[in-house]
Amino acid sequence: MKLELPRSTKLIRDMANLFNLIEPMKSLHWGMDVGAEKKIQGFTHVFECTFESMEGIAEYVARPAHKEYAKTVMPNVEKFQVFDYKLTKAII
Amino acid sequence: MKLELPRSTKLIRDMANLFNLIEPMKSLHWGMDVGAEKKIQGFTHVFECTFESMEGIAEYVARPAHKEYAKTVMPNVEKFQVFDYKLTKAII
Repeated sequence: MKLELPRSTKLIRDMANLFNLIEPMKSLHWGMDVGAEKKIQGFTHVFECTFESMEGIAEYVARPAHKEYAKTVMPNVEKFQVFDYKLTKAII
Repeated sequence: MKLELPRSTKLIRDMANLFNLIEPMKSLHWGMDVGAEKKIQGFTHVFECTFESMEGIAEYVARPAHKEYAKTVMPNVEKFQVFDYKLTKAII
């Protein structure tokens, strides 16, 4: 008997698989809210993708593999937000 | 003549200064949206704080220095969201 993966596990694995297909994508970490501050406004999951460059984000967005993944995941998502940013270390 | 820092620069410096006051807070990076995907829903800035443990987040939230900072920053903020999460490396 083959056990089915939970839907969310499968979707996260599919996202991780984008690494194999989109070179500028360098790492993916994810987590679920632990609710210490109760300011998450209905969101449940966080995904952090790191890219080799800012241009790499645009390349990722344009790739067919990303678009295909988006089509698979969107019917399972109530709402989402994307922040594309270059991190700066805060120095005082 | 003493130049005033722009308001947003001062607020980010004050946030970075929380390091000096709250030990479980290990790093702070920040960035502004570059809009590659246009899914940011009106948000402009991202702040990533790393803590030594999940308990460290709760300690940070409870600290007077954090509460004081929140009082200073909130009148300058139209809306905000907080995600507290433990990152898991996605493995396929």
